[in-house]
Amino acid sequence: VFTSYDPRRWAPHLDVCAYDSYPQYHARPGDWRTAVEVSFHCDLYRALLGGRPFLLMETTPSSTNWMPVGKLKRPGIHRLTALQHIAHGAESVLYFQWRASRGATEKFHGAVVSHSDRADTRVFREVADLGRLLERLEPLVGTRVDARVAVVYDKETHWAIDAAAGPRRDGRDYLPTCCRHYAAFWRRAIPVDVVHADADLGRYRLVVAPMLYLLRPGVAERLEAFVRAGGTFVTTYWSGIADEHDLCFRGGFPGPLRPLLGLWAEELDVLYDDESVPVAPAAGNTLGLAGPYRAGVFCDLVHAESACVEATYAGEFYAGRPALTVNRCGQGEAWYIAFREADGFLDDFYRALAARLDLRPALAAELPEGVTVQVRTDGVQSYLFALNFTAAPVSLPLGDQVLCALEDGRDLRGTLELGPFGSAVCRLGSASPL
Amino acid sequence: VFTSYDPRRWAPHLDVCAYDSYPQYHARPGDWRTAVEVSFHCDLYRALLGGRPFLLMETTPSSTNWMPVGKLKRPGIHRLTALQHIAHGAESVLYFQWRASRGATEKFHGAVVSHSDRADTRVFREVADLGRLLERLEPLVGTRVDARVAVVYDKETHWAIDAAAGPRRDGRDYLPTCCRHYAAFWRRAIPVDVVHADADLGRYRLVVAPMLYLLRPGVAERLEAFVRAGGTFVTTYWSGIADEHDLCFRGGFPGPLRPLLGLWAEELDVLYDDESVPVAPAAGNTLGLAGPYRAGVFCDLVHAESACVEATYAGEFYAGRPALTVNRCGQGEAWYIAFREADGFLDDFYRALAARLDLRPALAAELPEGVTVQVRTDGVQSYLFALNFTAAPVSLPLGDQVLCALEDGRDLRGTLELGPFGSAVCRLGSASPL
Amino acid sequence: VFTSYDPRRWAPHLDVCAYDSYPQYHARPGDWRTAVEVSFHCDLYRALLGGRPFLLMETTPSSTNWMPVGKLKRPGIHRLTALQHIAHGAESVLYFQWRASRGATEKFHGAVVSHSDRADTRVFREVADLGRLLERLEPLVGTRVDARVAVVYDKETHWAIDAAAGPRRDGRDYLPTCCRHYAAFWRRAIPVDVVHADADLGRYRLVVAPMLYLLRPGVAERLEAFVRAGGTFVTTYWSGIADEHDLCFRGGFPGPLRPLLGLWAEELDVLYDDESVPVAPAAGNTLGLAGPYRAGVFCDLVHAESACVEATYAGEFYAGRPALTVNRCGQGEAWYIAFREADGFLDDFYRALAARLDLRPALAAELPEGVTVQVRTDGVQSYLFALNFTAAPVSLPLGDQVLCALEDGRDLRGTLELGPFGSAVCRLGSASPL
Repeated sequence: VFTSYDPRRWAPHLDVCAYDSYPQYHARPGDWRTAVEVSFHCDLYRALLGGRPFLLMETTPSSTNWMPVGKLKRPGIHRLTALQHIAHGAESVLYFQWRASRGATEKFHGAVVSHSDRADTRVFREVADLGRLLERLEPLVGTRVDARVAVVYDKETHWAIDAAAGPRRDGRDYLPTCCRHYAAFWRRAIPVDVVHADADLGRYRLVVAPMLYLLRPGVAERLEAFVRAGGTFVTTYWSGIADEHDLCFRGGFPGPLRPLLGLWAEELDVLYDDESVPVAPAAGNTLGLAGPYRAGVFCDLVHAESACVEATYAGEFYAGRPALTVNRCGQGEAWYIAFREADGFLDDFYRALAARLDLRPALAAELPEGVTVQVRTDGVQSYLFALNFTAAPVSLPLGDQVLCALEDGRDLRGTLELGPFGSAVCRLGSASPL
Repeated sequence: VFTSYDPRRWAPHLDVCAYDSYPQYHARPGDWRTAVEVSFHCDLYRALLGGRPFLLMETTPSSTNWMPVGKLKRPGIHRLTALQHIAHGAESVLYFQWRASRGATEKFHGAVVSHSDRADTRVFREVADLGRLLERLEPLVGTRVDARVAVVYDKETHWAIDAAAGPRRDGRDYLPTCCRHYAAFWRRAIPVDVVHADADLGRYRLVVAPMLYLLRPGVAERLEAFVRAGGTFVTTYWSGIADEHDLCFRGGFPGPLRPLLGLWAEELDVLYDDESVPVAPAAGNTLGLAGPYRAGVFCDLVHAESACVEATYAGEFYAGRPALTVNRCGQGEAWYIAFREADGFLDDFYRALAARLDLRPALAAELPEGVTVQVRTDGVQSYLFALNFTAAPVSLPLGDQVLCALEDGRDLRGTLELGPFGSAVCRLGSASPL
Repeated sequence: VFTSYDPRRWAPHLDVCAYDSYPQYHARPGDWRTAVEVSFHCDLYRALLGGRPFLLMETTPSSTNWMPVGKLKRPGIHRLTALQHIAHGAESVLYFQWRASRGATEKFHGAVVSHSDRADTRVFREVADLGRLLERLEPLVGTRVDARVAVVYDKETHWAIDAAAGPRRDGRDYLPTCCRHYAAFWRRAIPVDVVHADADLGRYRLVVAPMLYLLRPGVAERLEAFVRAGGTFVTTYWSGIADEHDLCFRGGFPGPLRPLLGLWAEELDVLYDDESVPVAPAAGNTLGLAGPYRAGVFCDLVHAESACVEATYAGEFYAGRPALTVNRCGQGEAWYIAFREADGFLDDFYRALAARLDLRPALAAELPEGVTVQVRTDGVQSYLFALNFTAAPVSLPLGDQVLCALEDGRDLRGTLELGPFGSAVCRLGSASPL
């Protein structure tokens, strides 16, 4: 993602969003984490123009020359990632480059036609196969993604967090943290819009805004109105710190969010990478969290005011201080996660919250790690994308659901099988009635 | 410590020394090693103006924003380090910053009054508590530190060592080496002055000058006069190499120190970080050193001339060559440590030497690692500072000594108890006679 | 080696080659690997002027001041490396510096006369001893190295490989790869010339050109003519990629080398440093290779056309694809190693190939690791240099061979004994007939 401009400012002047996508597959720390980042950016560029489909402008069918290690894309990955973009709203798969350039910087960048000029290469055949599949996806043109969850990623907050001198020099990780919250929905097939902090929140049931450091005028008010009307809001440590001029709020953090969250954040501790602090869920907590968990990097030391304490630190000089709180406000509730997770807290938290808010997944099944299902719909007909970002085959249980595979028109019942790096596009419902 | 100016040159023109102190506590490799460096610098700035008290000009009551990881100061650390500076001669505890700045680079630097504007914060209360204690320390104003040991840290030697091309690119570590020698006294509560190479040595019984690479005219002569008059001198490898123009001495290292040390240093070997060479104390050596020890990084290959060999290398092609020598000269003696210690040599060496020279500690007890005791006196009345730089409570045996705690006026007998990062200031002798 | 000029272009204008040699001994990853690089460069500068002896212009008898760790040269190393240069064609051993400079950057660089001005130093004595030995080597003046193996190291290929954007950012390692192929001959005492790609190949039986990325006009034709006439050619992955303007060849890699090698290289995979792919020799392969081996960093995916497949990949999506091929062409054969070795493949490969081509070593014995034997001859009389780059003594079996040690004129029979870092120069044949 480019960090040097704010898409929020450009969006009103744009007719169409186009995106160059060069994820680094077959690298560390695992392909599916890379895939989460790709999905995150797709959901950002789609939501930017109100859900309008976007263009995948540049992609490579093979290696990317400027990467530290430009591995060949393994068989299946090219198709898988092309379908992933379409799943999130793309309506094109365009390449850089058609024919490999003979000289200069990009001569070892992947191309549809290699220096060999031959059409019997592995890469050319994979592109041609994908082209045939894309012809079968004609019915999807104009379909949309219908999300009830928004994750806030705000460019001005990103800039302000990166520009801050302290409290830690490295590892502030605003974007990776947003992706980490986002991943909890990705892995359970729940559609998400990625929005900026001024976005219209009317359509959402849940808004997640990690590290909402900077608050422009009106943002806190809109979030409070969203919650009063029945919405659920989740934010974290290092939120409500500075105004639009990056001047700290006086009178106690999280500044204008303090009434909504019902707490005062007195001090922010930071840890070395190899340190962590235990976190213990409160007995009888709202979400039934069992824990224990571990906090790392950031530990906010807060005083609950109107908020209920759902978990506490169980170590350091702040043992017993709140680590997770919820504040009821109007018809909704506002959660505060005071720490950065060092293990599986976020996944447990969002699993329970999704159940509490009845957020429906695209496919009602426990998905293996590294697999997601995304969905596009025209309001009547829905299309599932099953995407396996692991090198092992997987089998997804369909329950009573019948799907029709668009590639060959066959009905799928019982299970959906995906090979290594496998992918499928299916219409919900049997082929027969059509 | 700032390395870009030579305080020796400024000192004659100064009325008072002021010092900004931002040690990095709660980091690696352990708080007490950080504390040794702080003490070292205090002893330098105090000795610079002949023992006159100095000002602690800037300190933070909480985090330091520009550190890699700006951890909150744990409870107790703020008081502990304030008292540490006073123990070594400071007569002020001043803060940067009183009120947290709202914007710009230092907005996340610790402050007495936080962005919250509140007086019920942990930090504000700790500052207020310390203020109350400082009022009780009124009797210490004008008292001094009375040291019989000098550690030489010479700025021009520092510059010359850093500027040298060879024999190793990294790890020459002049300042850390001086601190490491200094630490042997810190941990056994023996007061030290940190002086430059031209300082008046008349008041000392022991002068330690590690890596005294550069010798200005007169330095060797003054050191020899000091030893002839009964003083003890200790120096190491890479001493007596260059004159004040950084031109190497001809005729054999350590140049003008050669008669005093009674040896010729022919070659200086350097090792990789993971290499070391065994060192074996000689049978019946003066200090009763048992060993074996290990040398690392620097191994000087010397020929003893008039010096006695107290230990030898026990490996490499220089096995059997002197590693530690002592040369009698007039009423005193001059020691040469030919190698950099890779394990506990220095501690054993100085323990034995302190006993041989009858150097009295501030408190006659074996202190736990990470604890020091420092002392200020007006010549009649003495004041002990007991400082625990560990996160564990410690108990210091007092023997027959009775102390009066200045904080509450109570007498202490038997033991002195310090909590985690605990600190105490005591007058020697019972409260009753006053 | 300096990479900023192409010695091929300078050579026609030079009368004599001079070389400054500062190998980093007693460092990682082992002295003998350092020694291989030194030998490689000697063989390059000698071959540059058609085998004419060259000058060792600068060397140090002791430490090198600008190295990360400027260790003292251990006893024996100075003589050993001086003789090594002579073994490869040097006819001088000159020093930087005679007398240690008193100031500035090079004052801690080794010197024949140290700052002590004394002649009884270890270093001075070693230089004097070597001088006495050199007087005994008078008969070698004008003798030459007679090599039947050429390793191609081409400066323009080096530049082009370093300048390429992709397929990996680091670890392309052209020069180390050439040295690694070279080492297989060094360790079995087979003389080698290191030549550029336009060199006259008429005198060689084997030409090895790893990573011959860039092909100037005529190079492929000359290599093919060399093979047709009975020569053996070995090349690897990432050869035949670009012309003299660094424009990629069209129509299939390895470009103009494709007919000679009988294969088409479709794609080049690259691996992370901790990854590898197994390689399995084919049953009944020409060289009797047993394996299995491991490929790392570079894995070329080729189609054998007229070439025979001698080994295949046994993992990744290219399992079963050729990893080693040989193509018969006229009276000779052309080998293609499609991968970079991650373990001992090259040594096995060249051992078998040397046997197949009847390449005679200077000494017909299995040499211990870290030991080489090199040979100079005037066509009638031959002189062996036995060089032990390990810290352990070694014993070389002489079989029926009788040698005469030039140092003391004694005959050697049965074995040749070398101490740690030991070295010897011997005339082939007994002293008696002279």
